[in-house]
Amino acid sequence: MNSILRDENALYYECGYSCDNAFLLSLGSEKWFVTDSRYTVEAKERVKGAEVVEASDLLAALRSLLRGEGAKRVLFDPKEWSVHSLDGLRRKLPHVRFVPRSDLSHRKRIVKRPEEIALLKRAAELGREGFDRFAEYLNLPGVDRTEKRLHFEAKAAMSLFGEYDLSFDPIVAIGANAAKPHALPTGRVLREGDLLLVDAGLKYRRYCSDRTRTLCIHDGVRFDERPHFRSAKIQKAYDLVRRAHERAIEKARAGMTGAQIDRLAREVIEEGGMGPCFVHSTGHGVGLDIHEMPYISARSKEVIEDGMVFTIEPGIYVPGEFGIRIEDMVVMAGGKAEIL
Amino acid sequence: MNSILRDENALYYECGYSCDNAFLLSLGSEKWFVTDSRYTVEAKERVKGAEVVEASDLLAALRSLLRGEGAKRVLFDPKEWSVHSLDGLRRKLPHVRFVPRSDLSHRKRIVKRPEEIALLKRAAELGREGFDRFAEYLNLPGVDRTEKRLHFEAKAAMSLFGEYDLSFDPIVAIGANAAKPHALPTGRVLREGDLLLVDAGLKYRRYCSDRTRTLCIHDGVRFDERPHFRSAKIQKAYDLVRRAHERAIEKARAGMTGAQIDRLAREVIEEGGMGPCFVHSTGHGVGLDIHEMPYISARSKEVIEDGMVFTIEPGIYVPGEFGIRIEDMVVMAGGKAEIL
Repeated sequence: MNSILRDENALYYECGYSCDNAFLLSLGSEKWFVTDSRYTVEAKERVKGAEVVEASDLLAALRSLLRGEGAKRVLFDPKEWSVHSLDGLRRKLPHVRFVPRSDLSHRKRIVKRPEEIALLKRAAELGREGFDRFAEYLNLPGVDRTEKRLHFEAKAAMSLFGEYDLSFDPIVAIGANAAKPHALPTGRVLREGDLLLVDAGLKYRRYCSDRTRTLCIHDGVRFDERPHFRSAKIQKAYDLVRRAHERAIEKARAGMTGAQIDRLAREVIEEGGMGPCFVHSTGHGVGLDIHEMPYISARSKEVIEDGMVFTIEPGIYVPGEFGIRIEDMVVMAGGKAEIL
Repeated sequence: MNSILRDENALYYECGYSCDNAFLLSLGSEKWFVTDSRYTVEAKERVKGAEVVEASDLLAALRSLLRGEGAKRVLFDPKEWSVHSLDGLRRKLPHVRFVPRSDLSHRKRIVKRPEEIALLKRAAELGREGFDRFAEYLNLPGVDRTEKRLHFEAKAAMSLFGEYDLSFDPIVAIGANAAKPHALPTGRVLREGDLLLVDAGLKYRRYCSDRTRTLCIHDGVRFDERPHFRSAKIQKAYDLVRRAHERAIEKARAGMTGAQIDRLAREVIEEGGMGPCFVHSTGHGVGLDIHEMPYISARSKEVIEDGMVFTIEPGIYVPGEFGIRIEDMVVMAGGKAEIL
């Protein structure tokens, strides 16, 4: 299958190396890793299964390879390519057909290899340690507890002060801010009894972790405890989210579709009368990218198989009041979902 | 001029607000800010000069506006649009001509308004304060001085522990690592006498700062001092870079092209016999984006005018040995370059 990939994680998956200016061209069984002189030394040491080609004009080098090999038809991912780059490539190659194929690399990566699952498991463990380190800050006396500072401290703790990259910019939201899916940190100060939502992850050897916990703040707070909110409404919502989360993990089976697993969580929240407040899907695949296939949503027809890794993250959001989400990563193994 | 913009900074420039899922459609003198329900409340409060349109399918909303207004020809930036999105838009609008126009927004933003220059000046000042805070860490006794930790501490200091966003992921490179344009931080430990290159910036009300300094480490080191390297070769290279930097700023005039200003710096380094080691261009524009027009490169025909803001950042890189760069932001004002 002829293809040109350009996404960094797609390249890393195919040949064990990537950089921010490179393409991987596959024609039949031959592969070329095309990059510029800043990266060729490292690429030659680390790229597996492809010939490294150095070029100052990468598109020109691709054209010359495509012409030289007489390629007629090449797949590309239209989400990866800008109009500008693709036009630059195909304008001078009228005899090559460039065929769009969305999620070209993500489709290949949907079932994880055992060594990938081991890396994701380690990422998840390190991610939990990051949450524990962040809890230490929350429990320090007399420190700055504005959302802005907590956001900064969450990044510091999750990265182990620079040792690990983060999977994404963490969400650290107090009270009503937790109801905004993309809340930006504010100057609001965290106090005893407040709700705190933390959604964060790190990368271990490029594989992502992803986890969310919702707390009620008190002295000695921990991310693995069941919170006790002062508001009965918030407590009820929390308990529903927790049951939805537990049920989806307990009852998910290989052979179900993403939509069926989404239903397992959604039914609990609907039966509790808060269905309209669960405004997003139940989960998403995790791997080299923080969001990849399979999607665990009401519309997902993807059949879930052993070796797939994804999140279970139901939530309830009441605008202006509060937001709750509980999220873990699971792997399908032996037909059932196991928390990583 | 009809256009559709989608880049966040392009949107912010046009109407004072942006979010990560929105388009700005301009047809004649009418404008529409099209976004989804997560953002419409905020958008309605903050968007100036455009009507906010809420949609779950943004492309469908754009099509309906384009049809309703009978648009025939619309400009778009082919660097902003993925093949996937543009195909989705135009497949169902065969009677509208979508005309690619690279750097559509950047061209409009090349000359800064006085209030933008004031924000860039404040960003540059705060950026220098960030460097000073980072120097405090460098001078602490007994702390972790691996490149990785220093990279983390540079981010902490530049952001004022989460108060400001960063313009880009800082570069903090020791010795030979400074010769790699995109060095990743390692476990190498910074010691007395080592060369340290720091390239970092922050954002003040979305406007970027950008600055680079190269140091020789000793007790009480400061970013505004002239370093004294133990190696005569490194010292010579440093002095050349410094003279190139000073000369370009001193002699740059409105009316010169980007290429002429690039020559002012490059000549010094060429005359010092190290021309081949100055492997990049002399500078780039800075504004809402960290890299924008004008480019100060050997090929730049852009005529530099009053109100343009750009970096002057000559460098010398000897692979396997060392790298040196000195960078400041300048504004053209009254025909001359002033450091911001």
